Amino acid sequence: MSQQMQRGGPSSPSCSSTSDRFPLSHLNTAECGSETSAEPEKHEVRANNAPTDLSRMKSIIMFYVCYLLCLCLGLACVVCVCLWNSRWRGGFAWDGSTLQFNWHPVLMVTGLVVVYGIGAVLYRIPLTWGQNKLPWKLLHALLMLIALVLSIVGLCAVFDFHNAKSTPNLYSLHSWIGIAATALFAMQWVVGVAGFLLPCSPTSLRKLLKPVHVWLGGSILLLSIAACISGINEKLFFVLKGNASGTEPYGSLPPEALLGNSLGVLIVAFGLVVLKILSNHKWQRPDSRPEDLAYTPLLQEENE
Amino acid sequence: MSQQMQRGGPSSPSCSSTSDRFPLSHLNTAECGSETSAEPEKHEVRANNAPTDLSRMKSIIMFYVCYLLCLCLGLACVVCVCLWNSRWRGGFAWDGSTLQFNWHPVLMVTGLVVVYGIGAVLYRIPLTWGQNKLPWKLLHALLMLIALVLSIVGLCAVFDFHNAKSTPNLYSLHSWIGIAATALFAMQWVVGVAGFLLPCSPTSLRKLLKPVHVWLGGSILLLSIAACISGINEKLFFVLKGNASGTEPYGSLPPEALLGNSLGVLIVAFGLVVLKILSNHKWQRPDSRPEDLAYTPLLQEENE
Repeated sequence: MSQQMQRGGPSSPSCSSTSDRFPLSHLNTAECGSETSAEPEKHEVRANNAPTDLSRMKSIIMFYVCYLLCLCLGLACVVCVCLWNSRWRGGFAWDGSTLQFNWHPVLMVTGLVVVYGIGAVLYRIPLTWGQNKLPWKLLHALLMLIALVLSIVGLCAVFDFHNAKSTPNLYSLHSWIGIAATALFAMQWVVGVAGFLLPCSPTSLRKLLKPVHVWLGGSILLLSIAACISGINEKLFFVLKGNASGTEPYGSLPPEALLGNSLGVLIVAFGLVVLKILSNHKWQRPDSRPEDLAYTPLLQEENE
Repeated sequence: MSQQMQRGGPSSPSCSSTSDRFPLSHLNTAECGSETSAEPEKHEVRANNAPTDLSRMKSIIMFYVCYLLCLCLGLACVVCVCLWNSRWRGGFAWDGSTLQFNWHPVLMVTGLVVVYGIGAVLYRIPLTWGQNKLPWKLLHALLMLIALVLSIVGLCAVFDFHNAKSTPNLYSLHSWIGIAATALFAMQWVVGVAGFLLPCSPTSLRKLLKPVHVWLGGSILLLSIAACISGINEKLFFVLKGNASGTEPYGSLPPEALLGNSLGVLIVAFGLVVLKILSNHKWQRPDSRPEDLAYTPLLQEENE
């Protein structure tokens, strides 16, 4: 047990050097931990160490500050994209007109960025650590399914709009990156559910899948952000031409341009906060942390 | 010493769960290790373990495969962006014309993506592990300086072009993201040199700086990729209008569109390979690995 303490708990100074890794370091390492909570024995040992408890408390408070920021930025993204398309772009419809196109940015930003990001940080919420992991895995899968459905409907909106106008589909770089993100996400979700949720999935398969799931999870978020930035940029150039349509040119930064650019900045900020949360070692679910997995054969055997 | 083995060396099975973290997990953790090579004692212990050596060899071979892929993708990005701007966009000049603008994509892709990415993975090359870290830190700083200078000249090219045409600067979302990436990169370089290279920089300051440097390093690469994708997308829409200028429309995917889109895909692929290399725990410089830092007070004291 003393060895366990020496190894450094979640907030021990010896672990500080690993506490600020970059994006998605542990995104799905969390998913690969045991479905039970961390061993009670470990919590007892940690509880006997006052400075460690203080450090843990600070870490948890910092998490909730970042999590709140993440939720606020996510909400701001959704509000901005809805406001832009309802107030400046004329609102929504499903009739092949530009009003149908307006669903595209709203659904892609909401699904492929905001719900995806919130689903990704789910395991990091300290409130969930003491509980059985299975319901949280199901909620993670459900949130990702919602994100996926929103993204697919968002793609349908733009395909229908293009087809109604006889505009070609999937020619721009924006569309290539966006379709790659959604296709990889769909594949990731199906393989993730089959590999990590189906009881018949063998541990050996889960161990093989895990690194791919980790890498792909992060890659999809990067692709989504790149697709959103290029899409918003493209749309603002399309609609703000300062011509007979009565719009001011993009170059004079009218209110719509400021709103669209701010939406882009918010999306990047949201993505970076999500990646920051996922990369912080201290905020990883205790039974999924590398040092716990490395020294607890029981947990290792239960590891997906 | 037996405890050291139990903790898991770079390729021990117990560490496999941490071997595939996502982007930039350890980008600058590596930079924060000791400036000496890993302790010889550790190498001796590892050398006595044949399966560990075999696993290390496999890991090193895999690294070089990924590193070669990274270099090939980086070269392909530079070739593509040069080919596009010389063959399809008329070549280069510094006269305020569109030929001056052509320097912009070439220098930004080369500096802010390719040289930056190659500079970021420098510490991961196993050949450098047995050597004193200081020369590699200097080379890292030099590569990043080259990347920064290329990016700044690339920005000058577009500012001059805009000013010559009386076009406003910094209004599009692409420009907002791109200028943020370059400004943060400049700040990161100055603070990085002052904090990690100047001998008078105290250890306490380095420890404070490190997590910010880690997070910012990854964030800058993400911003660069988003800026490149949106910039290429915007440029292709600008120039491929299928009008009197004799160009085919973007929607019909002429060869220039295919080349531009492929450049975007190559940039994303390069970025993901760089982030994959940086995130693999096994490929981290041994004296910078968390488990080494966590259990070796001497190394911890030398830690930046």
